[in-house]
Amino acid sequence: MKKIVTLGEIMLRLSTNVGERLSQVDQLTMHYGGAEANVGVSLSQFGFDVYFVSKVPDNVLGKAVERHLLSNGVHTEYLVKGGERLGTYYLETGIGERSATVTYDRKHSSFSTLTVEELDLEAILHGAEVFHMSGITLALSSGLRDLALLAMKKAKELGVKTSFDFNYRASLWSQQEASGAIKPLLPYTDICFCGELDAVYLLDIQQADNHLSKSEKLKYYYNEIQKQYPNIQVMSSTFRTVLSASNNKLQGNHYVEGKLYQSKEHHISQIVDRVGGGDAFASGVLYGIVEKLPPEQVISFATAASALKHTVHGDANAFSPEEVFKFAGNNPGEILR
Amino acid sequence: MKKIVTLGEIMLRLSTNVGERLSQVDQLTMHYGGAEANVGVSLSQFGFDVYFVSKVPDNVLGKAVERHLLSNGVHTEYLVKGGERLGTYYLETGIGERSATVTYDRKHSSFSTLTVEELDLEAILHGAEVFHMSGITLALSSGLRDLALLAMKKAKELGVKTSFDFNYRASLWSQQEASGAIKPLLPYTDICFCGELDAVYLLDIQQADNHLSKSEKLKYYYNEIQKQYPNIQVMSSTFRTVLSASNNKLQGNHYVEGKLYQSKEHHISQIVDRVGGGDAFASGVLYGIVEKLPPEQVISFATAASALKHTVHGDANAFSPEEVFKFAGNNPGEILR
Amino acid sequence: MKKIVTLGEIMLRLSTNVGERLSQVDQLTMHYGGAEANVGVSLSQFGFDVYFVSKVPDNVLGKAVERHLLSNGVHTEYLVKGGERLGTYYLETGIGERSATVTYDRKHSSFSTLTVEELDLEAILHGAEVFHMSGITLALSSGLRDLALLAMKKAKELGVKTSFDFNYRASLWSQQEASGAIKPLLPYTDICFCGELDAVYLLDIQQADNHLSKSEKLKYYYNEIQKQYPNIQVMSSTFRTVLSASNNKLQGNHYVEGKLYQSKEHHISQIVDRVGGGDAFASGVLYGIVEKLPPEQVISFATAASALKHTVHGDANAFSPEEVFKFAGNNPGEILR
Amino acid sequence: MKKIVTLGEIMLRLSTNVGERLSQVDQLTMHYGGAEANVGVSLSQFGFDVYFVSKVPDNVLGKAVERHLLSNGVHTEYLVKGGERLGTYYLETGIGERSATVTYDRKHSSFSTLTVEELDLEAILHGAEVFHMSGITLALSSGLRDLALLAMKKAKELGVKTSFDFNYRASLWSQQEASGAIKPLLPYTDICFCGELDAVYLLDIQQADNHLSKSEKLKYYYNEIQKQYPNIQVMSSTFRTVLSASNNKLQGNHYVEGKLYQSKEHHISQIVDRVGGGDAFASGVLYGIVEKLPPEQVISFATAASALKHTVHGDANAFSPEEVFKFAGNNPGEILR
Amino acid sequence: MKKIVTLGEIMLRLSTNVGERLSQVDQLTMHYGGAEANVGVSLSQFGFDVYFVSKVPDNVLGKAVERHLLSNGVHTEYLVKGGERLGTYYLETGIGERSATVTYDRKHSSFSTLTVEELDLEAILHGAEVFHMSGITLALSSGLRDLALLAMKKAKELGVKTSFDFNYRASLWSQQEASGAIKPLLPYTDICFCGELDAVYLLDIQQADNHLSKSEKLKYYYNEIQKQYPNIQVMSSTFRTVLSASNNKLQGNHYVEGKLYQSKEHHISQIVDRVGGGDAFASGVLYGIVEKLPPEQVISFATAASALKHTVHGDANAFSPEEVFKFAGNNPGEILR
Amino acid sequence: MKKIVTLGEIMLRLSTNVGERLSQVDQLTMHYGGAEANVGVSLSQFGFDVYFVSKVPDNVLGKAVERHLLSNGVHTEYLVKGGERLGTYYLETGIGERSATVTYDRKHSSFSTLTVEELDLEAILHGAEVFHMSGITLALSSGLRDLALLAMKKAKELGVKTSFDFNYRASLWSQQEASGAIKPLLPYTDICFCGELDAVYLLDIQQADNHLSKSEKLKYYYNEIQKQYPNIQVMSSTFRTVLSASNNKLQGNHYVEGKLYQSKEHHISQIVDRVGGGDAFASGVLYGIVEKLPPEQVISFATAASALKHTVHGDANAFSPEEVFKFAGNNPGEILR
Repeated sequence: MKKIVTLGEIMLRLSTNVGERLSQVDQLTMHYGGAEANVGVSLSQFGFDVYFVSKVPDNVLGKAVERHLLSNGVHTEYLVKGGERLGTYYLETGIGERSATVTYDRKHSSFSTLTVEELDLEAILHGAEVFHMSGITLALSSGLRDLALLAMKKAKELGVKTSFDFNYRASLWSQQEASGAIKPLLPYTDICFCGELDAVYLLDIQQADNHLSKSEKLKYYYNEIQKQYPNIQVMSSTFRTVLSASNNKLQGNHYVEGKLYQSKEHHISQIVDRVGGGDAFASGVLYGIVEKLPPEQVISFATAASALKHTVHGDANAFSPEEVFKFAGNNPGEILR
Repeated sequence: MKKIVTLGEIMLRLSTNVGERLSQVDQLTMHYGGAEANVGVSLSQFGFDVYFVSKVPDNVLGKAVERHLLSNGVHTEYLVKGGERLGTYYLETGIGERSATVTYDRKHSSFSTLTVEELDLEAILHGAEVFHMSGITLALSSGLRDLALLAMKKAKELGVKTSFDFNYRASLWSQQEASGAIKPLLPYTDICFCGELDAVYLLDIQQADNHLSKSEKLKYYYNEIQKQYPNIQVMSSTFRTVLSASNNKLQGNHYVEGKLYQSKEHHISQIVDRVGGGDAFASGVLYGIVEKLPPEQVISFATAASALKHTVHGDANAFSPEEVFKFAGNNPGEILR
Repeated sequence: MKKIVTLGEIMLRLSTNVGERLSQVDQLTMHYGGAEANVGVSLSQFGFDVYFVSKVPDNVLGKAVERHLLSNGVHTEYLVKGGERLGTYYLETGIGERSATVTYDRKHSSFSTLTVEELDLEAILHGAEVFHMSGITLALSSGLRDLALLAMKKAKELGVKTSFDFNYRASLWSQQEASGAIKPLLPYTDICFCGELDAVYLLDIQQADNHLSKSEKLKYYYNEIQKQYPNIQVMSSTFRTVLSASNNKLQGNHYVEGKLYQSKEHHISQIVDRVGGGDAFASGVLYGIVEKLPPEQVISFATAASALKHTVHGDANAFSPEEVFKFAGNNPGEILR
Repeated sequence: MKKIVTLGEIMLRLSTNVGERLSQVDQLTMHYGGAEANVGVSLSQFGFDVYFVSKVPDNVLGKAVERHLLSNGVHTEYLVKGGERLGTYYLETGIGERSATVTYDRKHSSFSTLTVEELDLEAILHGAEVFHMSGITLALSSGLRDLALLAMKKAKELGVKTSFDFNYRASLWSQQEASGAIKPLLPYTDICFCGELDAVYLLDIQQADNHLSKSEKLKYYYNEIQKQYPNIQVMSSTFRTVLSASNNKLQGNHYVEGKLYQSKEHHISQIVDRVGGGDAFASGVLYGIVEKLPPEQVISFATAASALKHTVHGDANAFSPEEVFKFAGNNPGEILR
Repeated sequence: MKKIVTLGEIMLRLSTNVGERLSQVDQLTMHYGGAEANVGVSLSQFGFDVYFVSKVPDNVLGKAVERHLLSNGVHTEYLVKGGERLGTYYLETGIGERSATVTYDRKHSSFSTLTVEELDLEAILHGAEVFHMSGITLALSSGLRDLALLAMKKAKELGVKTSFDFNYRASLWSQQEASGAIKPLLPYTDICFCGELDAVYLLDIQQADNHLSKSEKLKYYYNEIQKQYPNIQVMSSTFRTVLSASNNKLQGNHYVEGKLYQSKEHHISQIVDRVGGGDAFASGVLYGIVEKLPPEQVISFATAASALKHTVHGDANAFSPEEVFKFAGNNPGEILR
Repeated sequence: MKKIVTLGEIMLRLSTNVGERLSQVDQLTMHYGGAEANVGVSLSQFGFDVYFVSKVPDNVLGKAVERHLLSNGVHTEYLVKGGERLGTYYLETGIGERSATVTYDRKHSSFSTLTVEELDLEAILHGAEVFHMSGITLALSSGLRDLALLAMKKAKELGVKTSFDFNYRASLWSQQEASGAIKPLLPYTDICFCGELDAVYLLDIQQADNHLSKSEKLKYYYNEIQKQYPNIQVMSSTFRTVLSASNNKLQGNHYVEGKLYQSKEHHISQIVDRVGGGDAFASGVLYGIVEKLPPEQVISFATAASALKHTVHGDANAFSPEEVFKFAGNNPGEILR
């Protein structure tokens, strides 16, 4: 089995049921997730040997995180135990016109105190096909920014493909801070998940001509990014049209060797849980790349994986490649007996 | 904080989950609500000092009503304890093409025995900005009809703005009875919630010209009502298009000084709970009036408040003005992190 | 009350909630159902004296099946107790683009061992208006094929109207097997539920001219079938357009005396549970026939019954004729107070 | 199958889970029950052909009562539909030292308006082995008192054994009222469920000598009652020692032909639900009498049935005679595989 | 109504159901509690005008705390909004021999940053009968220690009775730290909740003679404490015998004017939730003192209140004085109809 | 980490909540378990590298089993996929005097078709410390009896300690069949879990002298067994006194080198779930042996592990050695903060 390594924070998510306000309920549903953990879980379900690198407290919640990862077949050897607490967030589920609302309680988390001394990067990355991380990690502490850079460099040194997802969150840091932290990583990045806003606001690329279509604009931005960082071989992102909290359209974009490949547009109605949709997409792209699918199939698979994610509760997908392929190909909604 | 007084019945609602028939289930969900209680709860969440006047039995259900009101910050000093029972209704939740079904068990309720002797109207209304009640109260007993008239008169006497919502329910009384009971209150009404059907069937106004648009018709009816009751300063209502039990369109109308202001049309899909949507609308109008918002904002706020109500379980909204404004302004459905 | 007899398997269904994967949950919801049992339950709710003939194990699950039937007023005198186990299936509920998935665990069921010796067909069918069964029974064992043929013959002999629903399931047997088993029953069939695919693949009828409309094609097939089996007096089926797992369109077809009657097209959104939709339709047709409704009403009633079924959990409808008529006639989705 | 008839009120019970206060919860569990309905359900599970005579509203709650009875095999031909409402009560479940609390909302119930004109007593009682009712019915209206007397007389006339359970509830009426209503029925009673308090306070029997043991006292009272009403052939009751709401001791008493038979004392710990324990006992006695068990077995069976009832939620037992016999004989608590 | 003020932290509690391990579940039950908040809730239910002083974050969890307090009638005017997060703890419920386990996630809480500048102590304490706080507050920050001392002094200055509960928690601080922080408060304390261990380990009182009974020892310690702090008028505590997590014995002690009053010993079996039992006791003592009950009644009431608390989920009691008196007097476990 | 191998069936368990009858509920709780799987899960939680060998169907239920094992850290490399179905059983939970009832639906299971050809015993057992299995496996098919014998022999050949638990179930086979199948394995057994009934009825050992105490008798039987099978080094079992389904006493016995070591007697009240208690005990013994604890500690640890199991839902323990040691040593029931 092929080895994959992802590094990032994993949090406890506590969410309400549909139609409930957090201030009024007395039951919460628990999930565990975080961008890179979600990618790890998906890739493990896709049949890879996934190692998730993180830090969680040495208590029952750390134990719970471990069970979550193990149940999905993710290796937990590099889950450091220590620090004060598990990052937590509360999700008031959205529906129809009403948006979901996230309340973070993630400060002072164990992960934010993770340092390079606690990890043997050489051993962790040795023999891996891909190392994946996201910009969220950079936002959490300067120690993590140092660690991230070292890890990306070490990966390149060991011949491991590197994957970086911008994942910009305005609630965590400013565009200026993000830009300053992300740029140093890009020269070590092979696969990059970013979109128009990232290009313009974090990489300072000049806005595209307004007469261009949405797809042409994206292609222009990807061209520009590649000019600056010719090492980046693949760029990917989705176009999401939010009709309501329950009803989105989603199309995948995949840029390889100067060409932009696009999936069909999925119409995702009656969304069950949108959190982790982007991570499912990234997992699909990485699966396609590692399995050397042609680009058309990569983006069709990745977008289907993301659309599927919207139909299940929790941050991470647990669908097999066969299920994703079937979903990508089938008529939607027929009972499978 | 500004004082508001509402008077009416509050009932126990026992409802099934989606997709369940009442005759087959063994679990019910409890909510407490009633038109004027719902308006009180909303207005309390909007920051007013709300006093709800009613009568509930002196038992654990009366206590439960009290907790419901208190948890929403509504004052319960004028919640009389006594009588035989709490009015109750059973709700079989609708979905898609299937309508919700209400089974009333509200006869002989404590509220229906409330008399003017049990209340100190002077003290209750003193210093209030608004006194609000609805036509449902009039349908419940002749004692309540007497009480209602006295209360409206007393409010006017004390300089309190009066608000009356027709809220006609065919299952409670005939049009003729309703007409006879409602008309005596109108000369004491400042703010009135009523629509085309009320105008034609309860106030005997001649039908509008069929060539007029829906909005023009409404304006015509409001003009005619104001001719009869020039004391009425504001009239409001919604246009609701029921595509299915789960899918409605909703537009708010607000008539002030001869002009009709209309909100944008909300498309409310995947409705969680429609009960109380009209009360949330009335609350929004009253908020706007007390806070002296311009009419365009009043109706935009009120309609947004009503649309929001459809996204939560229970009879009453517990959203802050900030949340309503944000909802009214935002793109629908984006995750708020 | 008019007597109806249905014969078939009844299974335990264990299903997940929406948005859950079967491999991850720790709670399942139980329902009991099977094509002919569902028809029996519906017809009992429609006011008939229904006898369901089947075999279930002599243990607590057999007892549970009995309670399910009794609670719906179905007679259980002819529920044979014995055999090894109750057929079971697991349903991973679908939503949006993701289809529901059925995992069968029905082999070695008690019903598959039912033999003609265990039943007194004479007594069972005596005085009945209708005897109904489906092709699923034929797929389960050769003993059941023998039993089915004998039962159909005996019904005809006793002047009981016979009803047969093709209900072809590719997961149970091949088209060739099905064709071989079904054809011998058709000469004894009065009312037949089948569609285009059944005509072409199971009855070897030549494909209709491609220029014909969907409805014209169906009429052609029904004509052809009736040429082969002139004893068949009525044929019925639905056109279902699957927009997604949650969103279907449904139109009913009813062929009597060479004429095709069609219902309006129902738009079934936010589907709660599609399983048993076809059985609800068949029940509606049988109700209409027994109650001698005109064909337009038969098909309107039957399609409404099927659409209603989609709004409730479980395999079988428990709506009264009054509720179905109201649903067929009403504007969809208005609250009924 | 032997025919049994019971007559009485059946109510909706809404109860909290253990450890919850009714004023704080938002979910209630539904059960349906009433003394005579519970006896009917038990006897149906014991294999008799039970007819329950009552009146429920013609709405979804009446329908729900019907399903409850049908699911237990009880015949509902004599369930009159009409009146205003279903009697309801709320149960705050007790535990440990804290008692359960019942809040009644049963006034104005459909049953309380049942009259003899609505029933064909001749047909109802024809061919029955036993007719059973309780003192609760007498407390509900004068019409019911008339009906009860007529029914008892008619039963005697038709050679049906009559059974009467005192079931005195202080919250429903005074001792004096109860005494006046119960005495006229006793000359028509064959089997009587009553205890020491009934003898002293309702039948004015002189208190037993204080030196006697509890059992000797009971025997004395039964002797005295039989002197007054020599027609009463059997008297039964239980001794219950309430150690806590969760922990009771229970011993059955059975008086036949001047002899008192007693069961072993059951130690009922971790009580799940005590409501209906007395009805389960009465059912056990009636089963024993109809099945002509020897008195030792009657009282052992009846007390075991009552003890079993304490281990399940809901008002009524659904155990087969085999299960009761096994329970009566077995070591408590071993897993049965 | 008499005014009471309590000051302390209120936390979110997330707990598992009985028989579940936190690392394996996906649902948690929410409660809000903290020693002084619990006392506040109880006293509000006892009919006092309770003001709870604390600090919670200005987000949805702060809002939820507010609703919890309001629903119990506690005033929230002095609930400061600000700081980073709501203190949280996870409770793995115990049963039988297995203890409950608490996992704290309370560091960096909003309350720990509360300072005297954020409060108007004069206004808060003005007119109050009692000011109550506990040693937990002292353990949370040095700012809180300063605040506590000022508040106690101000209370004395304003003629408010002061109440202090030692509430020593080894997981929060050492005995030495606790001793150093508590002693300065004692000269300003009127009513003191402490026991043998507090006397010996925190107040350095010499161990009692081992020949003394448990009660005599406690009396000796109380005597010694009063010698050092003659201002303390009342001391109270409970003797708890832990037979298992589900089965405790509890006796209350109340020391006034040199005399020790003791309640009967409650046998608390099938404990639902022990958290907050001590706070319920303190509330009972304070109720008795404010209502000027004789000492025997004070301690009987307080111990009954504590025993009652063990029968309900959540940190705080919501029983009325009538319910507590009834419970204190009644035979345990009889159904109250 | 030390390697352990267990081989056996793992089943889906579907259970009711306390106080519910299986024939009346519509929700079931899922657990996965089987004697050897449970031992595997416990030992994995105790820190060993556990491999569970079994066969499950290649469908979603097989997948669910895999997740269950993985979440507990058990290796699933040797979980063969294939066969028809997953063995299933239904558990009606017992309480108080009422026993739990198990309804098996395990025939035709995938595991019962497992053959030696599907396994590479050499690789599976290589390097293991212990190989554990139970008599249940022998009862399921003759193929499994062959496989078991080969596996035991291969283990001995490779120097792996072998452990065998009699686990006799009367519902699966007769004593005679069991005796014939078990005896051939004993010459290859190092550690044996068996008791008095096994000795007398399966190994034909003469009954012990009736004057001996229970412990002396057990020692006599162990002596006799060891005479016949001198290779058996360790024998263990528990004395269980069933006071009720909720209340047991449990004492562990451990026989090493002719000496019988006994644990203290645990009083297990308010039992949550007794299933798997014996497997937890076996796991504790194996832990002690592998970790070379002195015999007194082995039996104290093992009995504590078993007692702990009774406090959690599900078939298998997920407690760490630290938690078991703490539990074995602590006063029962104190809150651990």
